[in-house]
Amino acid sequence: MFRFDCDYLEGAHPLILQRLSETNFEQTIGYGCDPHCENAAKLIKKACNKDDCDVHFLVGGTQTNTTVICAALRPHQGVISADSGHINVHESGAIESTGHKVIALPSDDGKISADAVKNCFEAHWNDEAHEHIVQPGMVYISQPTEKGTLYSKAELEEIFTVCKKCGLLLYIDGARLGYALASNVCDMTLADVAASCDAFYIGGTKVGALFGEALIINNENLKKDFRYLIKQKGGLLAKGRLLGIQFEVLFENGLYFEISAHAIKAAKRLRQIFENHGCRFLADSETNQQFPIMKNEEIAKLSEEFSFEKWCSVNENETAVRFCSSWATTDKNLDALEKAVKNI
Amino acid sequence: MFRFDCDYLEGAHPLILQRLSETNFEQTIGYGCDPHCENAAKLIKKACNKDDCDVHFLVGGTQTNTTVICAALRPHQGVISADSGHINVHESGAIESTGHKVIALPSDDGKISADAVKNCFEAHWNDEAHEHIVQPGMVYISQPTEKGTLYSKAELEEIFTVCKKCGLLLYIDGARLGYALASNVCDMTLADVAASCDAFYIGGTKVGALFGEALIINNENLKKDFRYLIKQKGGLLAKGRLLGIQFEVLFENGLYFEISAHAIKAAKRLRQIFENHGCRFLADSETNQQFPIMKNEEIAKLSEEFSFEKWCSVNENETAVRFCSSWATTDKNLDALEKAVKNI
Amino acid sequence: MFRFDCDYLEGAHPLILQRLSETNFEQTIGYGCDPHCENAAKLIKKACNKDDCDVHFLVGGTQTNTTVICAALRPHQGVISADSGHINVHESGAIESTGHKVIALPSDDGKISADAVKNCFEAHWNDEAHEHIVQPGMVYISQPTEKGTLYSKAELEEIFTVCKKCGLLLYIDGARLGYALASNVCDMTLADVAASCDAFYIGGTKVGALFGEALIINNENLKKDFRYLIKQKGGLLAKGRLLGIQFEVLFENGLYFEISAHAIKAAKRLRQIFENHGCRFLADSETNQQFPIMKNEEIAKLSEEFSFEKWCSVNENETAVRFCSSWATTDKNLDALEKAVKNI
Amino acid sequence: MFRFDCDYLEGAHPLILQRLSETNFEQTIGYGCDPHCENAAKLIKKACNKDDCDVHFLVGGTQTNTTVICAALRPHQGVISADSGHINVHESGAIESTGHKVIALPSDDGKISADAVKNCFEAHWNDEAHEHIVQPGMVYISQPTEKGTLYSKAELEEIFTVCKKCGLLLYIDGARLGYALASNVCDMTLADVAASCDAFYIGGTKVGALFGEALIINNENLKKDFRYLIKQKGGLLAKGRLLGIQFEVLFENGLYFEISAHAIKAAKRLRQIFENHGCRFLADSETNQQFPIMKNEEIAKLSEEFSFEKWCSVNENETAVRFCSSWATTDKNLDALEKAVKNI
Repeated sequence: MFRFDCDYLEGAHPLILQRLSETNFEQTIGYGCDPHCENAAKLIKKACNKDDCDVHFLVGGTQTNTTVICAALRPHQGVISADSGHINVHESGAIESTGHKVIALPSDDGKISADAVKNCFEAHWNDEAHEHIVQPGMVYISQPTEKGTLYSKAELEEIFTVCKKCGLLLYIDGARLGYALASNVCDMTLADVAASCDAFYIGGTKVGALFGEALIINNENLKKDFRYLIKQKGGLLAKGRLLGIQFEVLFENGLYFEISAHAIKAAKRLRQIFENHGCRFLADSETNQQFPIMKNEEIAKLSEEFSFEKWCSVNENETAVRFCSSWATTDKNLDALEKAVKNI
Repeated sequence: MFRFDCDYLEGAHPLILQRLSETNFEQTIGYGCDPHCENAAKLIKKACNKDDCDVHFLVGGTQTNTTVICAALRPHQGVISADSGHINVHESGAIESTGHKVIALPSDDGKISADAVKNCFEAHWNDEAHEHIVQPGMVYISQPTEKGTLYSKAELEEIFTVCKKCGLLLYIDGARLGYALASNVCDMTLADVAASCDAFYIGGTKVGALFGEALIINNENLKKDFRYLIKQKGGLLAKGRLLGIQFEVLFENGLYFEISAHAIKAAKRLRQIFENHGCRFLADSETNQQFPIMKNEEIAKLSEEFSFEKWCSVNENETAVRFCSSWATTDKNLDALEKAVKNI
Repeated sequence: MFRFDCDYLEGAHPLILQRLSETNFEQTIGYGCDPHCENAAKLIKKACNKDDCDVHFLVGGTQTNTTVICAALRPHQGVISADSGHINVHESGAIESTGHKVIALPSDDGKISADAVKNCFEAHWNDEAHEHIVQPGMVYISQPTEKGTLYSKAELEEIFTVCKKCGLLLYIDGARLGYALASNVCDMTLADVAASCDAFYIGGTKVGALFGEALIINNENLKKDFRYLIKQKGGLLAKGRLLGIQFEVLFENGLYFEISAHAIKAAKRLRQIFENHGCRFLADSETNQQFPIMKNEEIAKLSEEFSFEKWCSVNENETAVRFCSSWATTDKNLDALEKAVKNI
Repeated sequence: MFRFDCDYLEGAHPLILQRLSETNFEQTIGYGCDPHCENAAKLIKKACNKDDCDVHFLVGGTQTNTTVICAALRPHQGVISADSGHINVHESGAIESTGHKVIALPSDDGKISADAVKNCFEAHWNDEAHEHIVQPGMVYISQPTEKGTLYSKAELEEIFTVCKKCGLLLYIDGARLGYALASNVCDMTLADVAASCDAFYIGGTKVGALFGEALIINNENLKKDFRYLIKQKGGLLAKGRLLGIQFEVLFENGLYFEISAHAIKAAKRLRQIFENHGCRFLADSETNQQFPIMKNEEIAKLSEEFSFEKWCSVNENETAVRFCSSWATTDKNLDALEKAVKNI
């Protein structure tokens, strides 16, 4: 079986495993207070071109989202998200489990606009009964979105400007941030992301690490006592250095960016394979997720040797599917796919 | 100012105040274990034609909804509701504050259908990633709905049948249940309601009581330890008898139904007043809430002497407004309104 | 049966019922925004000698405690309380249900000292692992305590001083505050209470009202958006004026203080009755709760005609019991008790 | 610096790193549904001599405890624990953050007895006001305890018998379970543990793994929908196989037991080193944590080269300290310690 279901099919970049072996018998104190975490935080701050932020390492994305959002909101506040946002649909109610509503805004492409945020905010405060309604307290976006689309630098800055005017915090889910930044149509750098939000995370799990996410907090109020929250929500890894070491490897020589670029190159070839076959695409994704629309019988055929995700039904005969590339996608797998699609 | 904003503008039916005075110096034990609560529960069971249900008295609607829903659901489950449902939009996130998502189904008329429930249920279980998605555990409807519309007996039974097949609990918010049952187009009795759900409440606050809701629980699992939950959620009134006494008065001689009928009669006159003026209506409400569409300048004029709620903008020049009648609506107020509308 | 179990055995002071009748057909807007609530708040501010506080009316004590505490704390913080504190033992886990630990300090007399608060605070911050431990964020005391004991003015001020130094909020549960202030050994006024805390509530339920508590908030951060929280926690009464009217009656001519004094006078007679019988007392209560220690066979005998609470076993043969007086205690009941105790 | 602070100072057993490398480019589906997790579960069931249990893999201990406890309890229930229990003192309020009180029982040695559980249960139900009190729903113990002490097989069975009689679930925190089972005074096997509880976890983090805990659930009700809860609480690792692979290595040839025995042997040498120096011990620990009592100036001296935890002050001049051994403790470090203690 050749797998294209997702971007967490393999282990980690070999350099990470190598470093874990090299450091294995070092003795370090726990819970992220070790020299590796310290150094990784330094490297990330440098890559973000920011000195005054806090950097924390957590194990996974749902955990990171939940911890940040529940740390930021008072009990009567909710978090604005695209209706397709990961926190709204694929975290088993993690946000609600901490007491907060996800205020879902309709979105076709997975993005929300500065205007939509502003309208949501104003609709709340203009409603005479607003004290009976969940108060927007934060905005959650992801870069890239669940649908592989991207915010431009201008769009992001506009959202952040609106947020600041409205007293809303802006938080960016960067589970696949590397793949966004490596995309040809992306006009922003990591430093641009870091400059335009209250907090965001750089995803490791889907971009070369075994697991782990690096959370960057700019907002002073949110920084306060944050490690208590990580501990409470189960994200304070005893051997915190495992996270530090991985992000050291990813950021000390630009490996994070290099392997992200590899995935984007593979995604382009993925796209080409389906274009050559005459496929339309569900969304115009420029990142590592591609959404070709295929005939149902073609899908059945292809599924015998290839795994990929059925995304949504388009009509009676056609379904949009998702093929992911990643840091680990091999030419061998792409060659096999190319051949198979040609021969359908 | 003549007020038509809502159905909780006045105190209580005079018989209730009289009974509170008569019983004032009785000494009773607290927390709803007194003879008045016992008797009121008996009267309600009789009116529901049900022996095997539990009856509890709580202070208000949001509290009742929250207590029932959080008692029923496990942490990963959510409650299905129309998007306009009170729990989804007007309870300041009370349901989410207990950890549960409101799974909002789109609805134009405030109702949800048995099919919509079934589809929602099946969509969940057919999704390969369902363990990452909030699991539907309960269905919340209100009779009448927020928009004044009504479920027919057949519709309610169909929903309950689907719920039982799917293992979902059905809970009915009856904040204005009296006004539903008194409506000319309603084809069900209180016993029919009681027979077709796992739990429901009979609203007192909006139908003649000072405050208070009578919760009826049919489902055995939900019955267990329910008083702990009432206490925890702040609904176990120290002088519980105040609730018992009020529901005794409302149910010992059919007062609840009688005063509900009064409100419906007043609502018809409300409707007539606006029909005579040539108004269209936002919804075809047969209960105590009427939603005429008026010109904005007419609304401004009328607002000088009358209070009512601006419901939603219909177009640039017109707005739908809400006028409520209740057990307490007087001819005097209706006469004044009739005259004013004529003279706009 | 003559009842002395608690201080919420009867309805309300007759003047309250009378006022509810007089105002019954006034039409007012809901949720505590009516003129009666406004006026009651004014009267309470005056009685507290404070202009810059917010006054809210809630239905019950558990609800008030829960709403204040969850509004004040961040998710990793807990509230310090005496181990016998109402929030720690008699609210069915209401505080924990909003996510917060009650940090219970051992206490024999129901009080906690400024030193104990300071030690608890310092123990937390001196612990190297404090990020793994619930952080103290607030102090909860009640005046009088669950055991009928009282804080002196100096003790209260000392606690508040420590709290301010430590950045802890101080909240006072005043369910029986009237009975504390009316006690002969109490050296503080309502204004003194109001001056020495971040928030407190004046209990109505146990002091003459049908139900209802008046919450006073001094702390600016806690004031913000507080009505959202009241709504979310089920405490925003639709007919909020019912609370306003009751507190108007209680505070417009000093009725609250007058009926509290009545209860203290009755409590003294209660005490005398048991002293004359040669009883020891569990605690030296100067408020409306008295805790005589009686032989078990005497208790059995007395229980035939009198109801009271078994508080705790003292030894094999003796049990401490609780007799409460209240604003409603009659000479008739006290006479009967006196006679019965004499004749045991 | 020679470190003895805790048992998570190093990475993982080299065989684990080796296997991670060997399997690194396998493509597997995510979230613990891969063949490695399946095989690891099979190996663990065999080691537990149990077929009818569910096995899940989670990332850390606090996360595992929180997920199990919140899955098991209804909202009004709490979990019984020794006052020194990890959930009560060192998880930043994680249990309370899911809405549940930790019902702390006093304990000198970190253990709770079957009698203490029974008394707690009966005290609840015999209290007339029990509906106002958090209901015990579950018992949490750890084997070994926080103080290094052990339950005997008979004690454990007795607790489980009481739990079953009382309708309480029994859950065992096995963060250091390997070290308990390897102890010379331990009279139970892994199968004995598995036979005497509703759920328990086998700790990997402290016993040879990089991270990860294997949760075993026997109770049918608790099994239901458990993966939703793991996801919601942030414990469903995307690359779940990382956990499966580690537990495969630990359980396929008894490595888990072998390296646990190594730690116990090292602990004995630790103990001997301090006994030879004439030290008393705080607790009579037969597991991998040793608690010698040392003079404060000795501690200061020793701290220059060795790290260990100050556990608690014993008197003005002496402090109990904690030295941990683990699967990774080397003779080199023990030799250095022996020499240093001799020369103090």
